[in-house]
Amino acid sequence: MANPFFKNYGPFNVFEILKLLNIDDNNIKEENINDVKDLTSSSKGDLTFFHSKKYKDLANKTKASYCITTNNLKSDLSESCIPLIVENVLISTSKVTAKFYPTSVNDDFDDTVIDINEIENLNTVKFGKNILIGKNVSIGSNCLIGHNTIIEKNVSIGNNCSIGSNTIIRNTLIGNNVTILDNCNIGKHGFGFFPKNKKNLRYPHIGIVRIEDNCEIGCGATIDRGSMSTTVIGENTFLDNQIHIAHNVKIGENSIIAGQVGIAGSSILGKNVKIGGQAGISGHLRIGDNVEIAGGSGVIKDIPENSTVMGYPAKNIRQFLKDNK
Amino acid sequence: MANPFFKNYGPFNVFEILKLLNIDDNNIKEENINDVKDLTSSSKGDLTFFHSKKYKDLANKTKASYCITTNNLKSDLSESCIPLIVENVLISTSKVTAKFYPTSVNDDFDDTVIDINEIENLNTVKFGKNILIGKNVSIGSNCLIGHNTIIEKNVSIGNNCSIGSNTIIRNTLIGNNVTILDNCNIGKHGFGFFPKNKKNLRYPHIGIVRIEDNCEIGCGATIDRGSMSTTVIGENTFLDNQIHIAHNVKIGENSIIAGQVGIAGSSILGKNVKIGGQAGISGHLRIGDNVEIAGGSGVIKDIPENSTVMGYPAKNIRQFLKDNK
Amino acid sequence: MANPFFKNYGPFNVFEILKLLNIDDNNIKEENINDVKDLTSSSKGDLTFFHSKKYKDLANKTKASYCITTNNLKSDLSESCIPLIVENVLISTSKVTAKFYPTSVNDDFDDTVIDINEIENLNTVKFGKNILIGKNVSIGSNCLIGHNTIIEKNVSIGNNCSIGSNTIIRNTLIGNNVTILDNCNIGKHGFGFFPKNKKNLRYPHIGIVRIEDNCEIGCGATIDRGSMSTTVIGENTFLDNQIHIAHNVKIGENSIIAGQVGIAGSSILGKNVKIGGQAGISGHLRIGDNVEIAGGSGVIKDIPENSTVMGYPAKNIRQFLKDNK
Repeated sequence: MANPFFKNYGPFNVFEILKLLNIDDNNIKEENINDVKDLTSSSKGDLTFFHSKKYKDLANKTKASYCITTNNLKSDLSESCIPLIVENVLISTSKVTAKFYPTSVNDDFDDTVIDINEIENLNTVKFGKNILIGKNVSIGSNCLIGHNTIIEKNVSIGNNCSIGSNTIIRNTLIGNNVTILDNCNIGKHGFGFFPKNKKNLRYPHIGIVRIEDNCEIGCGATIDRGSMSTTVIGENTFLDNQIHIAHNVKIGENSIIAGQVGIAGSSILGKNVKIGGQAGISGHLRIGDNVEIAGGSGVIKDIPENSTVMGYPAKNIRQFLKDNK
Repeated sequence: MANPFFKNYGPFNVFEILKLLNIDDNNIKEENINDVKDLTSSSKGDLTFFHSKKYKDLANKTKASYCITTNNLKSDLSESCIPLIVENVLISTSKVTAKFYPTSVNDDFDDTVIDINEIENLNTVKFGKNILIGKNVSIGSNCLIGHNTIIEKNVSIGNNCSIGSNTIIRNTLIGNNVTILDNCNIGKHGFGFFPKNKKNLRYPHIGIVRIEDNCEIGCGATIDRGSMSTTVIGENTFLDNQIHIAHNVKIGENSIIAGQVGIAGSSILGKNVKIGGQAGISGHLRIGDNVEIAGGSGVIKDIPENSTVMGYPAKNIRQFLKDNK
Repeated sequence: MANPFFKNYGPFNVFEILKLLNIDDNNIKEENINDVKDLTSSSKGDLTFFHSKKYKDLANKTKASYCITTNNLKSDLSESCIPLIVENVLISTSKVTAKFYPTSVNDDFDDTVIDINEIENLNTVKFGKNILIGKNVSIGSNCLIGHNTIIEKNVSIGNNCSIGSNTIIRNTLIGNNVTILDNCNIGKHGFGFFPKNKKNLRYPHIGIVRIEDNCEIGCGATIDRGSMSTTVIGENTFLDNQIHIAHNVKIGENSIIAGQVGIAGSSILGKNVKIGGQAGISGHLRIGDNVEIAGGSGVIKDIPENSTVMGYPAKNIRQFLKDNK
């Protein structure tokens, strides 16, 4: 369930995709491609991508009909899957994804919104002034929505939620009893693009944000939606003010994150994690259950469960304090 | 003067409080409790709390009629004060505070606000468009209030103040000649709660924020109100952009705090303090007068007056630079 | 081109300037001063300032008619330039600048704005609700402007730009194909003032911000305008969320800056610079082309081109990782 919101403009003829990728392969016969997905969630008729040996086991089992990959990697691919050989897998995948999901590339302001007073069936929602609501928004019972807030398109809010003022949300699933304070930006695209002189190539972000039951999000948070997966704030996790959560990050339940913390893209945190103020976590890391990270730390490698770390780079807290007496 | 704003829903019968705390004590006789306060500010008829040996001198002198405490601590209590014995003093105090001050637990949007154009006697206030003003707000002469700003309930603004646009303020006392720039959030509850699996218990914040004369607060600041005391920005102190000041922090006069600094809960800073960009200060510390903290430092222990520190953990700047050549 | 926007209230009679600076000099004869500028951009009839030996070569060549300086420095001044001797050059210059450009001292909300619907000739601009536009604003073709955004006075926006919602911009030149996301504050005065007990003296900021073609600015950015020069975000440079760029900073083209980075005043960065999340750069530094700065680093000295640095203070990344195994 990576993508309940973005409109798939496919299917596209495989010849059209070959042309987009500058591939000249006479062995491929005309057929439609339905969607672009990752290796595990692809089905027959889909296109996937495979860019690193790390994923060879998944590539071997994929059910996709086509796979964007390289000459070096193609032998690891499932026999039923036709390789589309390119120089740069990620750039090519980005181009194809943008073709299937053109509205996921930019986050221009949502011009589908209307004044909340024009919406029907909001009987139990208590709301402030100057609120705008986009298309495909649902709001549960007994919710509060503060002044000047914009619930842009593709948002589902559960019951008993309190949304503050001046907050902007899109492409987000919110559970029950969630509190989101003022000035937040939730669900915008992540900081993902391919650097290119003169004009960077933006990577499509077709994922969403999911905020589970009983969470609290402090003032001024930015929580970016996933690129191909979901950015998750687990049940009963509390975030203090001015926190930045990048795309694809997953935070487990019952975690506590103090002010000004930043978590870079695709890192996965366990449950009962405690992070002190201003700490930073690099991208693509795994932080185990019950980990405690001291304020101001910079975490640049995986942290096993039940550890307490401090410093930059973060290490065992006793060792750090001993080294820095 | 911790609490000029929140409505006290008491008095409550002591039997009602005993029931709330699951205390079965036949020696206590029926009587009303007026308020919940800290050890020093309590009077006869009030309830207080005592949770650490550190405060035994204050406990010995308290004038409160009742005190939430533990079996271990009760012998240090003033003779005139009846102990209410519990397992966890802070959680029990939180429950009782929430009973007396139910509106201090959450910071849902202020639905008492009205358009500033509907308010009378604002002759000398110059204001922008789409401004909302809550109940119990007073604004001095010659003030400016920018567009889309929300002065929520319980705010007093002095003379000659300039408030920017898109800013939200509540539970705050502002002196004269104060400048607050855009996109600030001032007076929301602090990041204080008791962690509890499945559903954290929010701690009531019955304190306020006080911003003294001639201060400047940069864009995007978050300044949380105190839990039982006041968060203070001292006279003529200037804050740069994107600063986070947590609950109960007190900053002395004539201080200068650069961008993206964060100060955790209950730390107390002297006057003439200078803090470089992105520095962080842990909670419950004391920073003396005339201290200078280099940008990027992480302060994790008290700093005596007239020191200059740098690093993480912050230490004497010469030592730091020598150690890091 | 430091100042296309602020109104010059001069010329002023030199005697008026002498009085303002408490200078008693019978050798100076009555004449008008047109403007206050830096050493290099001054012409005949202008006043400039010279406060450090570092600039003696520029002082020797200045075309200004007058120069605020000290007794120690005056001998380095061009012969055609009359020195105005003061104790503190910067405070005196600040006073004179404030006289020429009184509107550059404060950033009170812009009361010249009107609703965007009242503006003509915006045929190709697509805009949201509740948008305010100030005086001296121009917007190119095919632009998007989101809800609740305020384009304050003195802003020029090129073609094909996308401005988000809840964003505030003033004193800024924006190129073509620029994306600015939500909740940004661009063009406010920098954190520049002279500390003074009881009441700091604000320094005028008569500079601007320039954002060049193809840039992206993430949510919650603060980019301050220059004091006497321009704050520049170079072509095709991308900024992630919650970034703070102080006054006079210049960032070269094709740079990539991750979330929560802060760059202090007057630092100059080359092109193709990559900065990881939460890194900080002190003021008045020079960072060469193609430099990479690891996330969380604190840069406190110049970095030569093509280097990769990490740590606090930032040093060669291999050295840092070796020292911190």
